[in-house]
Amino acid sequence: MGNTFGHLFRITTFGESHGGGVGVIVDGCPPRVPISAEEIQVELDRRRPGQSKITTPRKETDTCEIISGVFEGKTLGTPITILVRNKDTRPQDYDEMAQKYRPSHADATYDAKYGIRNWQGGGRSSARETIGRVAAGAIAKKILKLAAGVDIVGYVKRIKTLEAIIDPETVTLEQVESNIVRCPDLDACEKMIELIEDIKRQGDSIGGVVECVARNVPKGLGMPVFDKLEADLAKGVMSLPASKGFEIGSGFAGTTLTGSEHNDEFAIAEDGEVRTLTNRSGGIQGGIANGEAIVLRVAFKPTATIRKEQRTVTRDGEETVLAAKGRHDPCVLPRAVPMVEAMVALVLCDHLLRHQGQCRTLNL
Amino acid sequence: MGNTFGHLFRITTFGESHGGGVGVIVDGCPPRVPISAEEIQVELDRRRPGQSKITTPRKETDTCEIISGVFEGKTLGTPITILVRNKDTRPQDYDEMAQKYRPSHADATYDAKYGIRNWQGGGRSSARETIGRVAAGAIAKKILKLAAGVDIVGYVKRIKTLEAIIDPETVTLEQVESNIVRCPDLDACEKMIELIEDIKRQGDSIGGVVECVARNVPKGLGMPVFDKLEADLAKGVMSLPASKGFEIGSGFAGTTLTGSEHNDEFAIAEDGEVRTLTNRSGGIQGGIANGEAIVLRVAFKPTATIRKEQRTVTRDGEETVLAAKGRHDPCVLPRAVPMVEAMVALVLCDHLLRHQGQCRTLNL
Amino acid sequence: MGNTFGHLFRITTFGESHGGGVGVIVDGCPPRVPISAEEIQVELDRRRPGQSKITTPRKETDTCEIISGVFEGKTLGTPITILVRNKDTRPQDYDEMAQKYRPSHADATYDAKYGIRNWQGGGRSSARETIGRVAAGAIAKKILKLAAGVDIVGYVKRIKTLEAIIDPETVTLEQVESNIVRCPDLDACEKMIELIEDIKRQGDSIGGVVECVARNVPKGLGMPVFDKLEADLAKGVMSLPASKGFEIGSGFAGTTLTGSEHNDEFAIAEDGEVRTLTNRSGGIQGGIANGEAIVLRVAFKPTATIRKEQRTVTRDGEETVLAAKGRHDPCVLPRAVPMVEAMVALVLCDHLLRHQGQCRTLNL
Amino acid sequence: MGNTFGHLFRITTFGESHGGGVGVIVDGCPPRVPISAEEIQVELDRRRPGQSKITTPRKETDTCEIISGVFEGKTLGTPITILVRNKDTRPQDYDEMAQKYRPSHADATYDAKYGIRNWQGGGRSSARETIGRVAAGAIAKKILKLAAGVDIVGYVKRIKTLEAIIDPETVTLEQVESNIVRCPDLDACEKMIELIEDIKRQGDSIGGVVECVARNVPKGLGMPVFDKLEADLAKGVMSLPASKGFEIGSGFAGTTLTGSEHNDEFAIAEDGEVRTLTNRSGGIQGGIANGEAIVLRVAFKPTATIRKEQRTVTRDGEETVLAAKGRHDPCVLPRAVPMVEAMVALVLCDHLLRHQGQCRTLNL
Repeated sequence: MGNTFGHLFRITTFGESHGGGVGVIVDGCPPRVPISAEEIQVELDRRRPGQSKITTPRKETDTCEIISGVFEGKTLGTPITILVRNKDTRPQDYDEMAQKYRPSHADATYDAKYGIRNWQGGGRSSARETIGRVAAGAIAKKILKLAAGVDIVGYVKRIKTLEAIIDPETVTLEQVESNIVRCPDLDACEKMIELIEDIKRQGDSIGGVVECVARNVPKGLGMPVFDKLEADLAKGVMSLPASKGFEIGSGFAGTTLTGSEHNDEFAIAEDGEVRTLTNRSGGIQGGIANGEAIVLRVAFKPTATIRKEQRTVTRDGEETVLAAKGRHDPCVLPRAVPMVEAMVALVLCDHLLRHQGQCRTLNL
Repeated sequence: MGNTFGHLFRITTFGESHGGGVGVIVDGCPPRVPISAEEIQVELDRRRPGQSKITTPRKETDTCEIISGVFEGKTLGTPITILVRNKDTRPQDYDEMAQKYRPSHADATYDAKYGIRNWQGGGRSSARETIGRVAAGAIAKKILKLAAGVDIVGYVKRIKTLEAIIDPETVTLEQVESNIVRCPDLDACEKMIELIEDIKRQGDSIGGVVECVARNVPKGLGMPVFDKLEADLAKGVMSLPASKGFEIGSGFAGTTLTGSEHNDEFAIAEDGEVRTLTNRSGGIQGGIANGEAIVLRVAFKPTATIRKEQRTVTRDGEETVLAAKGRHDPCVLPRAVPMVEAMVALVLCDHLLRHQGQCRTLNL
Repeated sequence: MGNTFGHLFRITTFGESHGGGVGVIVDGCPPRVPISAEEIQVELDRRRPGQSKITTPRKETDTCEIISGVFEGKTLGTPITILVRNKDTRPQDYDEMAQKYRPSHADATYDAKYGIRNWQGGGRSSARETIGRVAAGAIAKKILKLAAGVDIVGYVKRIKTLEAIIDPETVTLEQVESNIVRCPDLDACEKMIELIEDIKRQGDSIGGVVECVARNVPKGLGMPVFDKLEADLAKGVMSLPASKGFEIGSGFAGTTLTGSEHNDEFAIAEDGEVRTLTNRSGGIQGGIANGEAIVLRVAFKPTATIRKEQRTVTRDGEETVLAAKGRHDPCVLPRAVPMVEAMVALVLCDHLLRHQGQCRTLNL
Repeated sequence: MGNTFGHLFRITTFGESHGGGVGVIVDGCPPRVPISAEEIQVELDRRRPGQSKITTPRKETDTCEIISGVFEGKTLGTPITILVRNKDTRPQDYDEMAQKYRPSHADATYDAKYGIRNWQGGGRSSARETIGRVAAGAIAKKILKLAAGVDIVGYVKRIKTLEAIIDPETVTLEQVESNIVRCPDLDACEKMIELIEDIKRQGDSIGGVVECVARNVPKGLGMPVFDKLEADLAKGVMSLPASKGFEIGSGFAGTTLTGSEHNDEFAIAEDGEVRTLTNRSGGIQGGIANGEAIVLRVAFKPTATIRKEQRTVTRDGEETVLAAKGRHDPCVLPRAVPMVEAMVALVLCDHLLRHQGQCRTLNL
């Protein structure tokens, strides 16, 4: 059951990095939504390996096939299945890792849990699993756009200690996609690319922070208590590989302010809408969207698989060392951007349908 | 459905701050677990208002009654219902807030979502809702202790900018409970108490960070993909009132390291167990517990309801000001400690039962 | 988790027949629905023991209290908790049954599953658990009526071999409530009452069939595959105590016809609506409501607890005999009518909200 | 969400009869279970069209591919995806049905719900969807066999009014598979085959009853209240295409007995086990297995799609007639047998894992 996400708009991903393929089932999709494999492919191309000199050179085209749920270009309301075959696999790169656990990777814990593991390329723990999320996210984005003009933009906010200056209220997808690191601050992005290339040469890796904004989210999405919007967003992005932290709005920095400094005072906008004068809440109050931009950040650790030699142990309990082979990202951040966007879209789309079901069925 | 948490060990909380009462149903509890109202009350007393000079003076005893599911001191395996009646309510304190939205509170968003709101004391958005979580958490802690000796300890790590030095590997509940701020660093705690009292006098509020450790968590708990242990923990604590951020292990700080600096190298311990030499992973790799201490942090913003005057609007769309009445915590951190512990216990207990069901049914 | 029913409109019942009480939480209820304890009590009174000479003489008033979720006479959208305290309990009646398993009752299987059991009055397996269902069903009925004028009427169709003649298209609640057996065929009802009284005198029990009709169910409610409307209805009523069979529309009898005899041919009604000329489908085709009356039947076995002596065994594995004490229904059918109606209402209300969420959010 | 079944052992099916293919994801499968595509194919072959002269002549081999979740012949514990491509499709056979609704089929209700429909061969409402269930059922059967020697056998009990005499305690799979109608009563089966061939010649169809027995189900599987074993079994089989009724144990016939006639008296067997002297309960008491054979029956209506001319309407609201083309089963019963077995296996396997999780984690 751990491979399913969402309640009304619900996805289930499947597949290992080596084997028949990876993909997703989307259940509960509204009917008659125009969608094509090409639209989904656009998002998959933002995620795929080999897209630039700063990502893994693994050469997967990640071409998707819609197996079910779409007819004559429109969703049927029945499960949409999207399959991406595995192509450029090199199991031989993993021979050594079949025996030696990669430090800070999932190798050892999968063995502890299941007593069996597809050691070829990380199996189910491979970032390749996120193909299904990104494909489903493309559909969620389309629904959110059609329903309310919701606009979701993610970008690299920080690489190691290089922090970008970006205005979440105005940043555009075009600005993000203008460079290979997906950082719309062009000064910062040059330095980031240099840094990543340098680290790659060293056989090491680095991490950073992705920020994501969702604009035009209708007031009222979300719910009290456990399925608070920020709680579901946190779960969504903290389920991405390599994520180590989550913030909404003011986040950890906000804890150094007093209440009178931190609170978002209300005012009436020119159009008569209740608005907040600031947005330290990050667009959510009490688990429910207040109509301001939803702004969140996700910390991604440096990639665990590196070429540098490290101490480790074998499955049989012998101490040894490992210098990992294979083709790995020196920094996951550029490719993590569409993953974060997808999780945000999936959470918002599910809450949109749930809100409609509970609060818009009766006309009282 | 947003009031239910967990899959096999599943809780549903109910109740508003003003009205008949608040509480919880625990469904899926193992049978024959010895449990008493007194044991649950111990945890509720750590959470209740009026427990010290730095919390709200609201005088609730929060006495719990077990309505169902326990017979002759043991759980029946059927739903356990725990009810706490509301006692010391003063709806008149909220007369003004019936009309004026509190900045950064849930007043306005509840109205936007539901078109109706129990304005007395925050209704469902009141921290009083967490009584049900803490009560259920007491049962979860007991099961985890009986099953595997799991030990969960939360504490105040930071108030505003006052940071404590605490070793998560060794900190004890007794140390935490030795002072009213629940910070086991005795130097820091004195300053924290002073700071909170000072802020209280100003009619303002402050926030901070709670850290929580879970020790002796069996290797293998957790799962890949969406229900990763860190994802479920993130959702659990980010669903607590006033939480703004979450970190596991190295968290945001870890993103400034390189992979070779950050990775937890493996070694064989004296008892033959595979162990990591460091614990930047925070006890979880690939969503699954690796047997090391699980360490997480939660950011809590300054309390939204303050006596200082702030700009706001009325339900009818008029701009106005509000200086909140009522009895509110100047700092939620001391009372948030048992809430964080409860959410951690609930997540771990659910994963314990799920792991047993999937991975320990067959003997292959 | 086995105590929760529904997805968007979701209920969780709790409580044993002896102990603090029984009740229900309704989560996901639309906001602003006018509802009062009095309206709920009307349905509980149809279910309660001691209502007539042909039911158990146990004297429970089953008075309900709304603990949460309703404010100034309207639902808040947050969990509605309804509690009914246990009053007229006689645990001493069950002393013997603490040791001796009642044949065809849940005593032995609860022990096998949990290794512990509240032997007082059946504990969780008592029909008293259905109080929570009937209370929640009252709210579901109200929503269905407000949303679409849905009308749900259940009635006794057969007692033992005494079968009534009733037209599901026209039968009314008033006709059903006109007599204590809840059979609107007045000729049959007299004989049924006689038969039940006769069986009661013998210390034995009898069963029968309840039929239930739901009219004005909007076309389109339901879904394909696992959550077909008939599948969810089957689960709902087969989860009632003592139920042994379920039929929708033509049911088992329909299997003796040919396709050309059985199919419901289509025609265009005067108002331009697509209608079927017959209704062997029972209002559902392919899991989805077609706008015709939904008609289903539930078989209830004779009450297991009887005064007649029967062979049984003790908890300790000794063979013995048991002539049950206590106050039991000679025939559950009259009191089962509101239970069946409640389960039908709960299923339809959940599907109403789910349908709205998936199929009415976008305007394509 | 309506395409997912089960809680811990959870399947999601996908696919339309015409399009890329159909299949299933199995999530929550225990790790290290030996399974092969060949074993799954055996069950699919029992379900596939064209297997004999009394089924549809549609020539699908229904060859399955395992896309994920199995490695070196064993389950990984991660999602198992099974895909069957659509091959022998003839969309042109459905041209007329694109406009004309088939009586008692899902054509009209799908249109009412979704406003769009894959009219080629029934789309998602096609019995082809059950391929995913049968494939997943093969895995569930294997787990049940390995865990407890559970044995599930389904068979045709009645065709129209031709009823077979079969002892559920002793019937074997070999007896069932000895003839094309899957009725182990050889006298009855001859007449059934004749009847089906006769009806086929007439361009009409017939229905009947499938009975299914599960032996060696461990005592204690199941739960009280909503997820009673009989309730989940009812939902499982009532979600199969063309099912109209469900009975457990004595079923509808049991309602004509008195309690003293109907109750299953207890005795101590030679091996010291508590057993019942009769089995009118059908192996379940209070929702929980009592260790006796679980016996249930499912009513299947005559196939809706027939060659005989019937009155119907078009999508545009015109009255017309339809004599269906295409290749349809004159009687679904022989092919429904493996479907019923699959649903029974899926329910029992899910309850096995849930029971283990809740009741076998602690050793109290």
